[in-house]
Amino acid sequence: MSAGAVSPAELDARLERVRGRMRDAELTGLVVADPANIYYLSGYNAWSFYTPQILFVPLEGAPVLAMREMDALGAHRTAVRYAEDVLGYPERLVHRPDDHPMAWVAEQLRERGHATPGRVGFEGDAHFFAVRSFLALRDGIPEWDLVESRELVNWVRLVKSDWEIAQMRLAGRVASGAMRAAIDAIEEGRPLNELAAEVMAAQARGVEGADGDYPAIVPMFLYGDGADTPHLTWTAEKFAANSAASIELAGAHRRYHAPLARSVSLGAPSRDLDRLAGATVEGLNAALAELRPGNTPADVTAAWDAVLARYGLEKKSRLGYSIGIGYPPDWGERTVSIRRDDTTELQENMTFHVIAGMWMTGYGFEVSESIRVAPGGADVLTDAPRKLIVKES
Amino acid sequence: MSAGAVSPAELDARLERVRGRMRDAELTGLVVADPANIYYLSGYNAWSFYTPQILFVPLEGAPVLAMREMDALGAHRTAVRYAEDVLGYPERLVHRPDDHPMAWVAEQLRERGHATPGRVGFEGDAHFFAVRSFLALRDGIPEWDLVESRELVNWVRLVKSDWEIAQMRLAGRVASGAMRAAIDAIEEGRPLNELAAEVMAAQARGVEGADGDYPAIVPMFLYGDGADTPHLTWTAEKFAANSAASIELAGAHRRYHAPLARSVSLGAPSRDLDRLAGATVEGLNAALAELRPGNTPADVTAAWDAVLARYGLEKKSRLGYSIGIGYPPDWGERTVSIRRDDTTELQENMTFHVIAGMWMTGYGFEVSESIRVAPGGADVLTDAPRKLIVKES
Repeated sequence: MSAGAVSPAELDARLERVRGRMRDAELTGLVVADPANIYYLSGYNAWSFYTPQILFVPLEGAPVLAMREMDALGAHRTAVRYAEDVLGYPERLVHRPDDHPMAWVAEQLRERGHATPGRVGFEGDAHFFAVRSFLALRDGIPEWDLVESRELVNWVRLVKSDWEIAQMRLAGRVASGAMRAAIDAIEEGRPLNELAAEVMAAQARGVEGADGDYPAIVPMFLYGDGADTPHLTWTAEKFAANSAASIELAGAHRRYHAPLARSVSLGAPSRDLDRLAGATVEGLNAALAELRPGNTPADVTAAWDAVLARYGLEKKSRLGYSIGIGYPPDWGERTVSIRRDDTTELQENMTFHVIAGMWMTGYGFEVSESIRVAPGGADVLTDAPRKLIVKES
Repeated sequence: MSAGAVSPAELDARLERVRGRMRDAELTGLVVADPANIYYLSGYNAWSFYTPQILFVPLEGAPVLAMREMDALGAHRTAVRYAEDVLGYPERLVHRPDDHPMAWVAEQLRERGHATPGRVGFEGDAHFFAVRSFLALRDGIPEWDLVESRELVNWVRLVKSDWEIAQMRLAGRVASGAMRAAIDAIEEGRPLNELAAEVMAAQARGVEGADGDYPAIVPMFLYGDGADTPHLTWTAEKFAANSAASIELAGAHRRYHAPLARSVSLGAPSRDLDRLAGATVEGLNAALAELRPGNTPADVTAAWDAVLARYGLEKKSRLGYSIGIGYPPDWGERTVSIRRDDTTELQENMTFHVIAGMWMTGYGFEVSESIRVAPGGADVLTDAPRKLIVKES
């Protein structure tokens, strides 16, 4: 089922698109630090992003990977490109108050002729490009005029290739299996951390033909009173009869993600929750139908808003965001949001997590799908009953 | 078994220690962004660190939590301190190229009287303090002289309280249970992602009396030829007879971590691996005996080096690092390293992950323990056979 590893030709085409945008932005170089962007361009994939590492992309000539020596020695095991000549900074530079790995990297880039005057982009919102890395490059290569990249590589990632869509379908199958495991595991008296155990096992195991990679975010259980608060992680609290939880999880395959959320009521739901669920699912369905080429996220949000308004409801936060490759702590691409003022023109093979999360006071309801933008409206990659799921208590 | 939540009095004592160091460094304020540091000072704990958030600590007066509005509304569910008046930035500021949440936070801090001239620390190596956050604060509050904090809060975390040691003992029990699950699960033909599934389930489930929290790093399996490369995540490759793997995992409880590594051979090990294992375990034992108050990491490393030298071996990378609270992507504290030139005086209740990882060409061996520095040498928090573990194939 898996389409095999990404081809070198596809990686080269990605690099060409990045360089096209670099020319448009008048950049002579780009410092890529987001591990999702490094993977996208090189294939390099390891849990090494907790120490400084970059891919330096000059406008011409070979990009340069730079990372800790311990990791550099094994970079060839995953990197399809640029692994022949990785810069590995010495172990002694790890966690020093008065020296920094990126100062060493700056010297090495200078030796290789990259310290020439020009506008060089950096990723100002990337999670793993620390301020000290930025300052070390600024001080080490004063010839560079460092400018914020405005998520340049992330925007190149927006429209997926057929190979990428194949990975995301597999990720969707993993997500659907994990959600089935979650729903099956819910029973009275079961602690939330045991539900997490079942979900995480299902996420790593995957399903027949689709093995699971690690998701960028742990499964979330918004339970009981806490169902009004997103992003809380699990506790050992026991699932009680006549209570409800929202479950947020993802399936991952080769770092591609398909998130999926559902709410489950153990026993008959309250009238408030039941009513909220009905309105939210109807709104989501209306939104999904609008996710087709030529529309905008604003159009999609308008369809959602119109349904919710009929029920006297409104959602302040965005209805979704672009997805693809993910590393902790996020599976979003930080580009297109499904919200009222986003006027990006949708194109076929953009992929989104459409998440209708309604967090009321003391209760909440969530239903989401991972989708591909397609001519007939959303091509849904995930598979779970699109409703409030009620289990006998 | 759990000692309950941290007390407000303990949080206040932590704040006082941070302020003592701020006075020593002549800081009038400190911008704390590392989620481990925010948790340490406030108790706030959610998977919200993928969007900008800080705890601003003035030298006097109440610290201020600032985060996305969606998360701010539920901050009181975990924060023991500073949750009464959280600054929640509006949803519209998420992922904008020309506006930034930290610009809004800067305005709010100004309105509250915090934009006064002074030296204000920032965490230059924190993973979740992006360059754009730094630049927005610099531009929004030009009165501040922003200086690198040199891991100020992390250093305060170095010596653990009795409450913290109790959490780490529970984390150690979770780790030991997860390692037993890993060893039990290894068999010929089993894919590595299925081993990961067993480990992750055991990590979340925990053991009797110690429920599992999510570890900051996913389990690692350095398998076959790849056993010479740390930090690779799992694949669906099947465990073969007469092969070996190194397993790196942690147990976590209330965000406190106890990492643990072992190597397992399925079938008789090669002579090279067997010899390497013997030398490494002997070296680790020598190092553990030196982990007592008054010694330094340099003393510990010398004991290790002396054993390895007798076998003609040497380890270039460090032998361990301080541990405690962890969030993805790392469970280390980024302060004391067990290496030749670290002369920090060890004190009782410092806690370390001592990891004797030897990555040779084409094979490797790892054995580690999480320990507390104690008068008689290391008080070991983890429990697994300290040797190369050989299973019948």
